Amino acid sequence: MNQSLEHKRHTLAHLLAAAVVEKYPNAKLTLGPAIDTGFYYDIDFSTGDTPGDADLKDLQKDMKKLLNKWTEFTHEVVSADRAREIFAGNEFKLELVNEIETKGEQITLYTCGGFTDLCRGGHSDNPKAEISTDAFKLDKIAGAYWRGDEKNLMLTRIYGLAFDTKEELEAYETQMEEAKKRDHRKIGKELDLFTFSELVGPGLPLFTPNGTMMRDLIVDKIMQIQAKYGYKKVTIPHITKSDLYKTSGHWEKFGDELFKVKGQSEAEFVIKPMNCPHHTQIFDAQPRSYKELPIRYAETTMVYRDEQAGELIGLGRVRSITQDDGHVFCTVDQIDQEVENIVLVIKEFYQSLGMYEEGKFWVSLSVSDPKDPGKYLGDKENWKKAENMLENVAKKLELPYKRVEGEAAFYGPKLDFMFFDAIGRERQLATAQLDFVMPERFDLSYVDNEGNKQTPVMIHRAIAGSLERFMAIMIEHFAGNFPLWLSPTQLTIIPVAEVHNEYALNVHKALLEAGFRAEIDTENESMGKKIRGAKKNKLPYFVVIGDKDIESSSVTLESRDTGESVSISLDDLIAKLSKEASV
Amino acid sequence: MNQSLEHKRHTLAHLLAAAVVEKYPNAKLTLGPAIDTGFYYDIDFSTGDTPGDADLKDLQKDMKKLLNKWTEFTHEVVSADRAREIFAGNEFKLELVNEIETKGEQITLYTCGGFTDLCRGGHSDNPKAEISTDAFKLDKIAGAYWRGDEKNLMLTRIYGLAFDTKEELEAYETQMEEAKKRDHRKIGKELDLFTFSELVGPGLPLFTPNGTMMRDLIVDKIMQIQAKYGYKKVTIPHITKSDLYKTSGHWEKFGDELFKVKGQSEAEFVIKPMNCPHHTQIFDAQPRSYKELPIRYAETTMVYRDEQAGELIGLGRVRSITQDDGHVFCTVDQIDQEVENIVLVIKEFYQSLGMYEEGKFWVSLSVSDPKDPGKYLGDKENWKKAENMLENVAKKLELPYKRVEGEAAFYGPKLDFMFFDAIGRERQLATAQLDFVMPERFDLSYVDNEGNKQTPVMIHRAIAGSLERFMAIMIEHFAGNFPLWLSPTQLTIIPVAEVHNEYALNVHKALLEAGFRAEIDTENESMGKKIRGAKKNKLPYFVVIGDKDIESSSVTLESRDTGESVSISLDDLIAKLSKEASV
Repeated sequence: MNQSLEHKRHTLAHLLAAAVVEKYPNAKLTLGPAIDTGFYYDIDFSTGDTPGDADLKDLQKDMKKLLNKWTEFTHEVVSADRAREIFAGNEFKLELVNEIETKGEQITLYTCGGFTDLCRGGHSDNPKAEISTDAFKLDKIAGAYWRGDEKNLMLTRIYGLAFDTKEELEAYETQMEEAKKRDHRKIGKELDLFTFSELVGPGLPLFTPNGTMMRDLIVDKIMQIQAKYGYKKVTIPHITKSDLYKTSGHWEKFGDELFKVKGQSEAEFVIKPMNCPHHTQIFDAQPRSYKELPIRYAETTMVYRDEQAGELIGLGRVRSITQDDGHVFCTVDQIDQEVENIVLVIKEFYQSLGMYEEGKFWVSLSVSDPKDPGKYLGDKENWKKAENMLENVAKKLELPYKRVEGEAAFYGPKLDFMFFDAIGRERQLATAQLDFVMPERFDLSYVDNEGNKQTPVMIHRAIAGSLERFMAIMIEHFAGNFPLWLSPTQLTIIPVAEVHNEYALNVHKALLEAGFRAEIDTENESMGKKIRGAKKNKLPYFVVIGDKDIESSSVTLESRDTGESVSISLDDLIAKLSKEASV
Repeated sequence: MNQSLEHKRHTLAHLLAAAVVEKYPNAKLTLGPAIDTGFYYDIDFSTGDTPGDADLKDLQKDMKKLLNKWTEFTHEVVSADRAREIFAGNEFKLELVNEIETKGEQITLYTCGGFTDLCRGGHSDNPKAEISTDAFKLDKIAGAYWRGDEKNLMLTRIYGLAFDTKEELEAYETQMEEAKKRDHRKIGKELDLFTFSELVGPGLPLFTPNGTMMRDLIVDKIMQIQAKYGYKKVTIPHITKSDLYKTSGHWEKFGDELFKVKGQSEAEFVIKPMNCPHHTQIFDAQPRSYKELPIRYAETTMVYRDEQAGELIGLGRVRSITQDDGHVFCTVDQIDQEVENIVLVIKEFYQSLGMYEEGKFWVSLSVSDPKDPGKYLGDKENWKKAENMLENVAKKLELPYKRVEGEAAFYGPKLDFMFFDAIGRERQLATAQLDFVMPERFDLSYVDNEGNKQTPVMIHRAIAGSLERFMAIMIEHFAGNFPLWLSPTQLTIIPVAEVHNEYALNVHKALLEAGFRAEIDTENESMGKKIRGAKKNKLPYFVVIGDKDIESSSVTLESRDTGESVSISLDDLIAKLSKEASV
């Protein structure tokens, strides 16, 4: 978001706090930041009245009234002791004051319209003039642990939406309404794609036959597209001695998110939060020659990260994360060809979903920050060469890219693919990341054509990313109306009456033999009910078979997407479906 | 083993101990049982000389000499105090004496030829007369922790081989020599199928592209065979809250073998040691009707069991175990049809390996022990019905089965398939197990055709079993010479000289398009070297292309198994390979 909008949102958090303490004098304020869609404030109401959703309207009115007097922010630097005096009785603010003091930073208080809060600054200069009263609204109330830690007190979080204009606010609300209808948790249940179990625990989805079919279709599609580029599948276990992650440096980086494993021995194991360290060990299992490079490993496998229970949302954020992972070990000179191949796979895959189209995606060419060169590890010359290679690939393949300085990882530059879904939400999906660091940490090497030991470069690549998140995004993007190739069941055959069953069974058999995921509904139910079933399951097609169809040796095909019904011969049906499924 | 042989082996353990203490007076005896191939004795030599492999011959001579005087065992019951006097200074025997005392059992000493040991009995009546001096020999020395616990002192284990006759001993030694040549760890390395990493840890194999291809070929074969029986793939995470295993009852059963998982929250997680509990949760995610049954789930997924580091042997025993698992939920009346289908899958799969042949396998019909009915859970009538059903299936499909009473699991009867490998070792592989208990523990139900709630039966089925163990067995069975369908690379094309490359590349392309895993060797090396490479990699075929082949529009095909070389047209080659690969 632009800085001016961020300042407005932050100002509105103060304004909300001011309205709250006026109406709820016992409320203890804690923290209230700007967020992507507006702002929130976490408040402890435990010693007095607590507002409910019904009270948001009044609070909002109060905010608008107060805003009239908010014309200027002033601030002062105070001593820690003075701050402790001011916030006496509010253990949350006191904790923050003590922390700022420990870090040796300045303690600042910001005041506007008579309301003062502990704050680092970043507000609208003149809130009354800058903030439009119809461009913000209070949205909802939720619970939130103090500092996000389950062990702490549960606070009340009041969310507000805020944009620059009324139109933007309304557009966002419309998008949210549409998003609610498309919620992957709702559609996932309707289409029986996955489930959760109390006994298994949150963030650990179980995939039903339909959901597993969808996972397999995604993985198979990627494998099939990339087969021509020489990727070979490997298989690794999900746990490892912690030594692997201490060597890679992730032991510290992942910290609390690592699931630690304890067996009967003293050995310290972890569940892998990523796959690259294991893959280096397959590369390193034998001496390698330049003649073997590039070596390309691919594996679809689950990694585990201990997300906080409160942050888990359906498949959108899970603890068991299936990655369609790939790693290329190559020379610096091979980077451009390998990245080009990866981009071609991304292109073909997202084309099959209709998402690789002008205006529907952009690519972040994430390079180093020239102002902060110390941030990046690895040989400077290699970095420069690699960044140029990435940019050349982006140009050659006509990617709609933006060069974003400072967005590179510390271990290498990368290309990140951002796609806009059907209701305009930006989703980061595919990626190709260079890595100059990990090969060194694991002391990987190959012998070059002069017999010298060299360190390879690694490229991390993901096409769909996490399968769980990808499925969540696809379910919402298509609202469950998947393209033919991605539909667990592609069509169902509905005989009008029992006399049509035999013919229908033959059609079914022919479709199965042609490789389609076809079902047949010979239950003793009305045709209307069967058709409603097919529609409820969002099947791309259904086929009705009655007297006329048998007479004319054809079937009646109805399309989910066009709603049109046509009479078509079995051969033509197979040809039509084959064409559509092979995008 | 028969009881007489077990007694001989146990007697020989005593005899070994007698010879040891004569030669190594400081040696402290600990435990010395009979085992499948003979016997061993674990001894603490830490306070004196320790024998090496070179000393085994002398010890063996001493044993044979002593045997002359071993004509009768006597025994006496002694008090714990008396036993502690006798074994004073031997902390191991003292520990055993104290344990027996705590349990309130009798302490017995057995004596033969003047040598006395703490023992429960079970020896040859007249060792000199019964034991043939050329039917046993000392085999090797290894380290072993006291009571198998890594935290204890490392002892010296002396192994002996012992059989009834010299011929049997020699046959076993021949088998062992052959087994050494076929050792899957050796061949696995030669064929680059898998590797281990110090950083990842023991028992956690990493599968290379070749090994992963082999895994996939096995799984695909099984999936393809069972597709016609309505199995659907599902996908579960590898961890779960411990609640799942407490409900299933495995929490106690697996005990130390369970890998416990700790995240940042208080929740207690484990890595799954099996898949059935997770699968019940998919079944249980919605209300089920009798119309949906049988419901059949299949999944190839890793389970984790914390085997002791000392017990891990290549792929034969690992901590990350990939199961080709399957679970059927059905009514009692559907058991026979479902088990029949499972057996048909097993039959077709093992036929493709040439192992489902008369004399090469047998089936254990493992039923309840009529003398101990209290051991088994579930409805007695259902047990009886199910056991009859299993036997009827065995009869109908003409299985070479033996009814083994008392071998059923406590939760249900089963069919276990035992195959003999190429050097005569018996390997338990496929299984179909009924389960009357787990559905009840998880309160699973379906509604029958009268609207009543019923509990389904579960069938656990494995075709290959653990993929790691299966691969170890197959590598040793075939000595790496896999059948065509199971070979990661099926053939390689060797152009005689550079001028033949173009034609060879066309042959290669045609073979790839026909779906074969073909490689081409256009390296600038001699033909002899290339052929040696193909043979070293045990490829089923290689194809040589020279002038004559191009002239006659054919290729020269050499078979690994027959060693024969034939000229064959490309079409005929594809037809021949297709036929062979589709067993």
